[in-house]
Amino acid sequence: MSINLAFKALSDPTRRTILDLLQERDLTAGEIAEHFQMTKPSISHHLSLLKQAELVWDERQGQHIYYSLNTAVFQDLIKWIISFQQSDSRGNEKN
Amino acid sequence: MSINLAFKALSDPTRRTILDLLQERDLTAGEIAEHFQMTKPSISHHLSLLKQAELVWDERQGQHIYYSLNTAVFQDLIKWIISFQQSDSRGNEKN
Repeated sequence: MSINLAFKALSDPTRRTILDLLQERDLTAGEIAEHFQMTKPSISHHLSLLKQAELVWDERQGQHIYYSLNTAVFQDLIKWIISFQQSDSRGNEKN
Repeated sequence: MSINLAFKALSDPTRRTILDLLQERDLTAGEIAEHFQMTKPSISHHLSLLKQAELVWDERQGQHIYYSLNTAVFQDLIKWIISFQQSDSRGNEKN
C-alpha cells in the first residue's frame, strides 16, 4: 500500500463519511451516492481515490459492483501512527 | 484539531520524515533542514503545514525556535482509525 495515498484519501470528509457508511455493510456506488448531495461522477471520483489508496475493495456481485472496507490498510496506518505515541516516553509531551 | 489537516499533513513523505526526526528530540528548523536536500523555505512550508495540523508545536528557547511533536493529536487519529478495525467483527475482511 502507499501510505501517501492512504493519508491523502483520509484527508477529505466526504471520503471519511463513505468509509463510515461501509462500516455498516458493503454498498454499491448508487447506494453510497444516496447519502450525499453530490453528482454520481463526484462520488465515483471519491471512490476511485479510496480504491487507489486500497482503503476499499470493489467486487462484482451479479449485476452490481459492491464496495467494502479493506481493514488491513487501517491496521498498517495504526502501526505507523502508534510509533509516535511511544515517543511519550521521552517525557516532553505538551498538554 | 482538524482531522482533514492532520491527514493532509501526513500524506507527504518529507513531513513524515520530519516527524520521525522529532521523535528523537526537539529540533530547530535549521537542524531539520540539514537532513534534507531542500531549501529552507521549502522546509519552513512543510513545518507550517505540520503546525497548522497541530502535529507539532514550536516554542522559543532563547535565540532559537524549537519544534516538538504534539503526541495528543496522534492519539486522536488512532482513535478515529481504530473504529475501522472494529468492523472486522462483521467477518467480511478480505486478505
